[in-house]
Amino acid sequence: MENKFKQIGNWMAEQEIGFTFLTSTDNIFYFSGFYSDPHERLLALILFPQDEPILICPAMEKNDAKNAGWKYEIIGYSDIENPWDAIQKKVAAKGQKITKAAVEKDHMNVSRYEALRSSFPSLKLFTSAEEKINRLRMIKTEKELSIIREACKWADYAIEVGCSEIAEGKTEMQILAAVEYELKKKGIAKMSFSTMVLTGKNGASPHGNPGDTPIQKGDFVLFDLGVVVDGYCSDITRTVAYGEVNEKQKEIYDTVLNAQLAAISASKPGAACSSIDLAARNTIRDAGYGEYFPHRLGHGLGLSVHEFPSLTETNSLKLQEGMVFTIEPGIYVPDIAGVRIEDDVYVAKDGVEILTNFPKDLHIIK
Amino acid sequence: MENKFKQIGNWMAEQEIGFTFLTSTDNIFYFSGFYSDPHERLLALILFPQDEPILICPAMEKNDAKNAGWKYEIIGYSDIENPWDAIQKKVAAKGQKITKAAVEKDHMNVSRYEALRSSFPSLKLFTSAEEKINRLRMIKTEKELSIIREACKWADYAIEVGCSEIAEGKTEMQILAAVEYELKKKGIAKMSFSTMVLTGKNGASPHGNPGDTPIQKGDFVLFDLGVVVDGYCSDITRTVAYGEVNEKQKEIYDTVLNAQLAAISASKPGAACSSIDLAARNTIRDAGYGEYFPHRLGHGLGLSVHEFPSLTETNSLKLQEGMVFTIEPGIYVPDIAGVRIEDDVYVAKDGVEILTNFPKDLHIIK
Repeated sequence: MENKFKQIGNWMAEQEIGFTFLTSTDNIFYFSGFYSDPHERLLALILFPQDEPILICPAMEKNDAKNAGWKYEIIGYSDIENPWDAIQKKVAAKGQKITKAAVEKDHMNVSRYEALRSSFPSLKLFTSAEEKINRLRMIKTEKELSIIREACKWADYAIEVGCSEIAEGKTEMQILAAVEYELKKKGIAKMSFSTMVLTGKNGASPHGNPGDTPIQKGDFVLFDLGVVVDGYCSDITRTVAYGEVNEKQKEIYDTVLNAQLAAISASKPGAACSSIDLAARNTIRDAGYGEYFPHRLGHGLGLSVHEFPSLTETNSLKLQEGMVFTIEPGIYVPDIAGVRIEDDVYVAKDGVEILTNFPKDLHIIK
Repeated sequence: MENKFKQIGNWMAEQEIGFTFLTSTDNIFYFSGFYSDPHERLLALILFPQDEPILICPAMEKNDAKNAGWKYEIIGYSDIENPWDAIQKKVAAKGQKITKAAVEKDHMNVSRYEALRSSFPSLKLFTSAEEKINRLRMIKTEKELSIIREACKWADYAIEVGCSEIAEGKTEMQILAAVEYELKKKGIAKMSFSTMVLTGKNGASPHGNPGDTPIQKGDFVLFDLGVVVDGYCSDITRTVAYGEVNEKQKEIYDTVLNAQLAAISASKPGAACSSIDLAARNTIRDAGYGEYFPHRLGHGLGLSVHEFPSLTETNSLKLQEGMVFTIEPGIYVPDIAGVRIEDDVYVAKDGVEILTNFPKDLHIIK
């Protein structure tokens, strides 16, 4: 933890930033080790170039923060107290006149931005805290990687359970329920996002919702799910077939698989994100399905299920050792079929290590 | 739906607001009937005093929006397109020079606020869209109420399942898994928030996390959970005992129950939120546990599990017919016990109707 504080402290000193004001659960957990989703209540962490940080949380969570290992100052406030006065006083007591602050521009809401500006009238410049923190979080430590590995093993297991539950007439929700039950019984408290089990035509929407559609012979069943372990997410997609597939379905499946494998082969330190996306996208275009792959190839993965960077055909950022991201091309032909195949990968010295390992050959469940 | 558009349109006309720019999933669903959680991608709805509204969503969700019944314009954008140019052009085509806009100040992030300001340099004033929308959403229609009633029935059922699962040595997560499995098998896709099952000392933290603590004789088991039906949330808490209770536990339980009943009795149209909170708070103070009730009495409930208004000892807002909110006093004595009892209530003509009906007498499971 100390190393993170030092890195962001150095950045603040270089950039002449008086403090960094963090508001998102994930970034606060990253720096403090304290995980809290305070809903509409204010949770914040103020980092300084030199001074010790200050945590702001509901008074009723102060003990939880201490139990999570937080050793520095905490400003607690009740549901009828306004925390901004206390924040202003504590920061003013540091004795620095601050003109520039970093905030999470992609997270902090306008109300808090206005409250911060009112509390610190000397503040003239606001810079994006994500610019630095996204790049810190992008490179995983050994410890983070080992947690993500475990989250990925659970994701593989979840797909295994899902496949074993497939049977004629079972609904998407019944299968989803069985998958989550198996995980929760084993102590998995949280999924990375709402689990998706989509059958037949429902799978042809990249963001469909599971419901009471029963499985029929000839359907694809698409699973997209992830598991949270110690705050870190996994994210896997597998598409399997029930009973039989026709030639068109097989062609679509093979195209997605080839695209996914092409992107994996293209991934190594120094390769641009765009080149990874295009390795998959061109495979799909060449097969004539370009218009049916409407999303980016993938996204960074860690404390957030979607984090920096975004793997698009226009992102020139180069891969670096230590990154973890998803590779998830898909083809969605309305009323015909939807197929997506997604792995989580870790960028090692010479290429990528695949962290999700459930088989990807077309699996026809009889 | 048309009535909502008219009400906010009239408000915009009165306030000379050129457009209202919505960004939260719940408010967009409230006005459009389209439910989407786009993660970091932009989802927005622009409402005008007179003109037809415009929805902005990822291109791959356009069909989902239409299928959800959206009949007006949609701006779709891909992962490599910046939607702000298209937004600027579409709004400019309306031909009005706009100087004042309403935004969700409690939701819109700084990046989008800056993008909006850059796209519309004529905008000088930003007002809170929540000021109006919170009050619209606060009063439930018959249709909304009937959905919330159903969500509350499922919440009662979930507590029933939870109680039936309690047995010596079972862990919090095992019980939680069984509860959610029963609901999901029956088609419930989403809980209102992370389900809580807390036993013994864990229940003494108002925001504890379920884990592998096994149930022992003499423990309280606290359930806090909710179910989403057609977008609307329920939220219930029950605390039951396993095996036996001592005098202190019984005293704490009775105090919370008396406080909860006092708050229910005090609830009727015209009563201030503060008076409802204080009816419970004074009961707890009088019993000597005032310092162990560290949170507000409750919160509005609807599309969001926590919504306007907040029931605190300082909120002078008066109850009106049609409101739905929670009444959830608690006492948390560290290392001794935590008890919370929560119902969802609807404000009717002469008092409140209780929507969650699982029994509240101290239930000792043998």
